[in-house]
Amino acid sequence: MDVFSYHKGGKLKIIPSRPIKGREELSLAYTPGVAEISKAIIKEEEKAYEYTLKGKTVGVISNGTAVLGLGDIGALASLPVMEGKAMLMYEFGGVQAFPVVVDEKDPDKFVEIVSSFAKQFAAINLEDIKAPDCFYIEEELERRLDIPVFHDDQHGSSIAVLAGLYNALKIVGKGKDVRIVINGAGAAGLSTAKLLYQAGFRDMVVLDSKGSICLERKDLNPYKYNISTMLGIGECVPLREALKGADVFIGLSKGEILKAEDVGVMNDDAVVFALANPTPELTPEEAEKAKRSGKLRIYATGRSDLPNQINNALVFPALFRAIVELRLRKTPRGAFPKIAELISSYIEPKEDNLLPSALDKKYHRWLSERIKEVV
Amino acid sequence: MDVFSYHKGGKLKIIPSRPIKGREELSLAYTPGVAEISKAIIKEEEKAYEYTLKGKTVGVISNGTAVLGLGDIGALASLPVMEGKAMLMYEFGGVQAFPVVVDEKDPDKFVEIVSSFAKQFAAINLEDIKAPDCFYIEEELERRLDIPVFHDDQHGSSIAVLAGLYNALKIVGKGKDVRIVINGAGAAGLSTAKLLYQAGFRDMVVLDSKGSICLERKDLNPYKYNISTMLGIGECVPLREALKGADVFIGLSKGEILKAEDVGVMNDDAVVFALANPTPELTPEEAEKAKRSGKLRIYATGRSDLPNQINNALVFPALFRAIVELRLRKTPRGAFPKIAELISSYIEPKEDNLLPSALDKKYHRWLSERIKEVV
Repeated sequence: MDVFSYHKGGKLKIIPSRPIKGREELSLAYTPGVAEISKAIIKEEEKAYEYTLKGKTVGVISNGTAVLGLGDIGALASLPVMEGKAMLMYEFGGVQAFPVVVDEKDPDKFVEIVSSFAKQFAAINLEDIKAPDCFYIEEELERRLDIPVFHDDQHGSSIAVLAGLYNALKIVGKGKDVRIVINGAGAAGLSTAKLLYQAGFRDMVVLDSKGSICLERKDLNPYKYNISTMLGIGECVPLREALKGADVFIGLSKGEILKAEDVGVMNDDAVVFALANPTPELTPEEAEKAKRSGKLRIYATGRSDLPNQINNALVFPALFRAIVELRLRKTPRGAFPKIAELISSYIEPKEDNLLPSALDKKYHRWLSERIKEVV
Repeated sequence: MDVFSYHKGGKLKIIPSRPIKGREELSLAYTPGVAEISKAIIKEEEKAYEYTLKGKTVGVISNGTAVLGLGDIGALASLPVMEGKAMLMYEFGGVQAFPVVVDEKDPDKFVEIVSSFAKQFAAINLEDIKAPDCFYIEEELERRLDIPVFHDDQHGSSIAVLAGLYNALKIVGKGKDVRIVINGAGAAGLSTAKLLYQAGFRDMVVLDSKGSICLERKDLNPYKYNISTMLGIGECVPLREALKGADVFIGLSKGEILKAEDVGVMNDDAVVFALANPTPELTPEEAEKAKRSGKLRIYATGRSDLPNQINNALVFPALFRAIVELRLRKTPRGAFPKIAELISSYIEPKEDNLLPSALDKKYHRWLSERIKEVV
């Protein structure tokens, strides 16, 4: 099927959960009956979870400023992506979701707008908002609202990366003292650096397009600066230099920036997560060369047509299911490393099969039950 | 079934319109396939109608400031009402709808917020927003957006009233020169006055709780003032005075303000639409008395458990279906009198059966096809 036929008429269907066959149902669903429900909510807001869509619906919210590989394409053009996200939420997590695309780029105004209607949802999945705005927006919304706000491009990605990393390290027999190079300091890059730190990894270098994020640099935004102080990195180095002796490369940047020779300077049993989409930082062809040279041990990408996909769809459906079922009021950020551990524990990892399949519905079900135990 | 059991889990279900069974569908619904759809919309916004939920989804939007008989109950407590509205839209109009309740009472800020996400819908149904804010909000949104914005409490009500009036006048054999008293100068009252004027009725008095809206009064908001200039009413009279010799009373105000004796001062073959909910301006008991005295000929209410319900559910489902199917960019306001005429023409009216039944799905289908011919 071609992609336009698949999208004809949109991807979401909104239907009544109950029939209206006659006057009796009409007077339950609408006036006068519904007034009783409104009154119950006036008395106790909590009742909205029970008697309205709030209790089971996640808002998938974007301003369309960093969509897929397309960049700032605006709210309306991002709508099909958000519909897709809502579909995955339902298919894998069993949680219903509705997209709201907000045509507002100013972070403060965006926060105001989303705050004004967020309460009707059980939780908010922020999506495809450009860095560094996405950090401020998520923090501010989480602070203001009494529902969880989760920016998937940050945390869905970083939790999936950490899960993959746990399993890669099992295979190569290394521990938390590995030296890690993270290339990319956008939403996913910075979030991954923070999560890995939270999980106990300390030997990390994070790079943006200008080289490593080091204390000396004067061009860092506050979020990058925080990372540099967290990691205490004084030395400014280019990517090639940073790779020398590194055990793990995590690419959350742009395609085709590494060659097999670059992997050659890494430590033995090198792990490369080349997660740029659609073209990985290290192409499959170059990865093949690096493997033949004996240096590269584990190669993972973000692509579904290659082995070892590191996919945030391994995270968000089960996480939102747990959030919705437990009616959490805050995102369980402290549990993120544990969630990554749970994901990694679901399978016995192999070099070409690091992580569970996102299409395995049993896996999502299992994960959401486990998450409910640890948050 | 009790109303709380009926509402358990909310009244709307959001599900994928297409399955995701394997990798192929996943790559159509989400990355990389969905990027093609985004690109098509970037090139031509119109494509959003075809390939996203925009093409078939109405936004039901409120700030919860004038909900049913409950008043200003806030956004969240209005959510079950908006869900009910979305159900009716689907059940009767075959149009899917999603509620967004916006916690913002300032009209300008509300307009800003709704404008920021309205584009993802084919049309906006404004609901339960207090007067006079609702007039400004509707006008301003309609001006800014390139989709129809229809405040149902105004126009759904007034079109249903006009349809009922056409049929009542057929029965009593009177014409457009009837003298009409409209009691209530909120959303429905003022909108009805304007629509009746647009339809050619000229002999009207509109009253609020302080008496008739007349040029002399200094306490009128701009919307009431406009009505007074439109009707050129110089004389200020109380309700009882206004009723003398009137042919038609239209109540869009509060319950139990008329007695049988008040109807006694009206013209012969009096028509009384007592539309306050849940208690009509003239109660069924008083109406019975007035009928026995020979003065009252036609009595209609807003209630579903009495004959002659005048119900905006006779209007909005078919109208929105026509709007969505034709992809209209502006509300077809000029066609409102014609739509009322169409509604009234669907049945041969009787004294106790003025209008079609809102539960008759064939009627809605018929009406939307007719509306498509006249807009």
